[in-house]
Amino acid sequence: MVVEIISTGTELLLGEIVDTNAAYLSVRLNELGYDVLYRTTVGDNAKRMQEAFKVAFSRADIIITSGGLGPTKGDITKEVAAEFCGRKMILDEPSLERMQAYFDKRNICMSPNNTKQAIFAENAVILDNPYGTAPGMLLEHESRVLINLPGPPRELKGVFEDTVVPYLQDKYGNLGTIYSYTLRSIGLGESKIAELLDDLITVQDNPTIALYAREAEILIRITAKAESKDVAQELLRPVAQLIRARLGDYIYGDTEQNLQTVLGNMLLEQRLTIALAESCTGGLLSSMLVDVPGSSAYLKGAVVTYSNESKIRDIGVCAADLATHGAVSRTVAEQMACGVRKLMNSDIGIGITGIAGPGGGTAQKPVGLVYIAVDLKGQVACREYLLNGSRAVIRLRTAKAAIAELMDIMKNSL
Amino acid sequence: MVVEIISTGTELLLGEIVDTNAAYLSVRLNELGYDVLYRTTVGDNAKRMQEAFKVAFSRADIIITSGGLGPTKGDITKEVAAEFCGRKMILDEPSLERMQAYFDKRNICMSPNNTKQAIFAENAVILDNPYGTAPGMLLEHESRVLINLPGPPRELKGVFEDTVVPYLQDKYGNLGTIYSYTLRSIGLGESKIAELLDDLITVQDNPTIALYAREAEILIRITAKAESKDVAQELLRPVAQLIRARLGDYIYGDTEQNLQTVLGNMLLEQRLTIALAESCTGGLLSSMLVDVPGSSAYLKGAVVTYSNESKIRDIGVCAADLATHGAVSRTVAEQMACGVRKLMNSDIGIGITGIAGPGGGTAQKPVGLVYIAVDLKGQVACREYLLNGSRAVIRLRTAKAAIAELMDIMKNSL
Repeated sequence: MVVEIISTGTELLLGEIVDTNAAYLSVRLNELGYDVLYRTTVGDNAKRMQEAFKVAFSRADIIITSGGLGPTKGDITKEVAAEFCGRKMILDEPSLERMQAYFDKRNICMSPNNTKQAIFAENAVILDNPYGTAPGMLLEHESRVLINLPGPPRELKGVFEDTVVPYLQDKYGNLGTIYSYTLRSIGLGESKIAELLDDLITVQDNPTIALYAREAEILIRITAKAESKDVAQELLRPVAQLIRARLGDYIYGDTEQNLQTVLGNMLLEQRLTIALAESCTGGLLSSMLVDVPGSSAYLKGAVVTYSNESKIRDIGVCAADLATHGAVSRTVAEQMACGVRKLMNSDIGIGITGIAGPGGGTAQKPVGLVYIAVDLKGQVACREYLLNGSRAVIRLRTAKAAIAELMDIMKNSL
Repeated sequence: MVVEIISTGTELLLGEIVDTNAAYLSVRLNELGYDVLYRTTVGDNAKRMQEAFKVAFSRADIIITSGGLGPTKGDITKEVAAEFCGRKMILDEPSLERMQAYFDKRNICMSPNNTKQAIFAENAVILDNPYGTAPGMLLEHESRVLINLPGPPRELKGVFEDTVVPYLQDKYGNLGTIYSYTLRSIGLGESKIAELLDDLITVQDNPTIALYAREAEILIRITAKAESKDVAQELLRPVAQLIRARLGDYIYGDTEQNLQTVLGNMLLEQRLTIALAESCTGGLLSSMLVDVPGSSAYLKGAVVTYSNESKIRDIGVCAADLATHGAVSRTVAEQMACGVRKLMNSDIGIGITGIAGPGGGTAQKPVGLVYIAVDLKGQVACREYLLNGSRAVIRLRTAKAAIAELMDIMKNSL
């Protein structure tokens, strides 16, 4: 069964809001085994909405709209749907009473405008909305189903789950599922991974493999179609194993885990504590580690040494070395890592120094040059990076690179 | 001129990512006076993409696609566009050389897959992409323009601004503008602001006024239609003045300025330096300040005292007070602010301690309880907050509240 989602609302076309409803419906419909093949966005304009319905009826079995069920004159989705299907609009008394009760309960005087929300096409299925004032509407027409859902995300989700999902399951039965599993990698570029997995990607049918780049990480998504989630997982498993075998340590986690969560688990398992000395990242790495609940078990603390005086005074970087090599240098990164480890009395110290830009770069030390040092119980290693992107992107990539570098060192020191 | 945006990518139809590119393009095209009347999303499927192009060519003058320019076999947008317009694909040597240089500069071996990114339809305008490896492509066909932009948001924005905007202005001239100006406020809720501006919002026509909530901030957007940006700005100015007069100090900045930028300018103007002692925010506030280029002029540094020992040892919190009042207390916040100010030898010290959750809350000290102390040249003030949201949201709201509190204190100490 092919689904088209039509998001309505001029505010979407103006770019004022990002369409999270379409993403939600897409995820859920795929999970339920439906093929969402098209999404369209139109404004609150009757002619263009009619046209969008016409295109959708020519290529989809189920058409789901979001938005335009409100009380204002600009809310026209139900009216256009009724006209498209050649139906009259009639007042539904029970809906009007439910809406009156909704307002009474909140001690709000119902505006006459709201009556509009209790008017539906004749022979429509009214989709009750206990989450707000605008019920949805479902029309069967020319062997297709046209479903109008309210725009506020909480209401859309509620009405979809409560009324649309049971309707679809009743009408179409179990359509199986499309299930995805994602492997997360860092350290290799997208094209390199594509090369390493080329044969697997080429022969893909079920499951399929797709790559996505995410600020220094590459996600490898494996998707299977099957009659149930269990069977889909059976199909995914050998492919995931094959990919893990090929990419080895470049795979650091899967669907539910981000870099800082995986690192946190490694630190907990090996009972290691950590402290950070950050310069160009300015506390970003520390903040990412603190994002993980329970991180106080391993994170001793961090020092943002954003000035030379702080590097010297707070974590014992040698003033002469700082003068000779400059703040952005291998030597200073190493001394930052050692210094903060001793200060915080931790097993691991990380020292980060670099040039995030946009200013401050030179021919010798360009924007994006970063040194990340790791001191693991007195063993110090330092790597040099040349990262690109805006100031914010370089800082994020640096923080991620630091986690990846530490994970790499921890694995190899086992 | 009617524009249709076609977002390509099966990951969009699966709902794995939210389409921020379409929102960005919508905003910018509206600003440039173009009517974005349709947006369509299709997967990486040649037949359906062809169909989407056909529909778009029937109703739009300019068709802009995003995504599908990468090096993998799943990236087919340029190929489908070329076929749709009946053109051969040919290798562009200069693009190949630029890409080779891009990889050389980063000391990465270029994968043969990348060659695909230097192949374009014949007679295409190649849209250079210094932000990544995939150039865009522009085809003029049947009095329409088909533009293929890369999918990564940073690359899409860069290529759009650098090459598409000049092309459109050259080809179509000035189409008028829809121009927005945003006032940023913190400290008042959305419904309170709606009440204070009710009469202005009700009579709105041109310009219009809209409110948007953003993690502890409320944005007030004023939008005008006019033949030029200058005229639009003339229309906006009196409305903005009226709103500023009503909301006073709750307005802290406008379109281009976020909290940390405004604070940075205040610190520069008053020649004040700052140091931070962060507990629950864990370096987030420091990282936000470092986001602003040039922040090294006023940020001396920060200490993430994520353990009691660090609070006592590194910034001189009194062990007895810590035991008596607990780490999350007014006393400890104040001592953190004073301690870090003295340690870093700055004019201002900020101390933040709180319970970000999800665990760690009690009846007396629930999740969301936060103390933020400011020490301005020895004058110490501390405020108590009870914030709600997830761990990440509480931490973000805390960091923003700290900036707002400091700005408030600085204004009143003048």
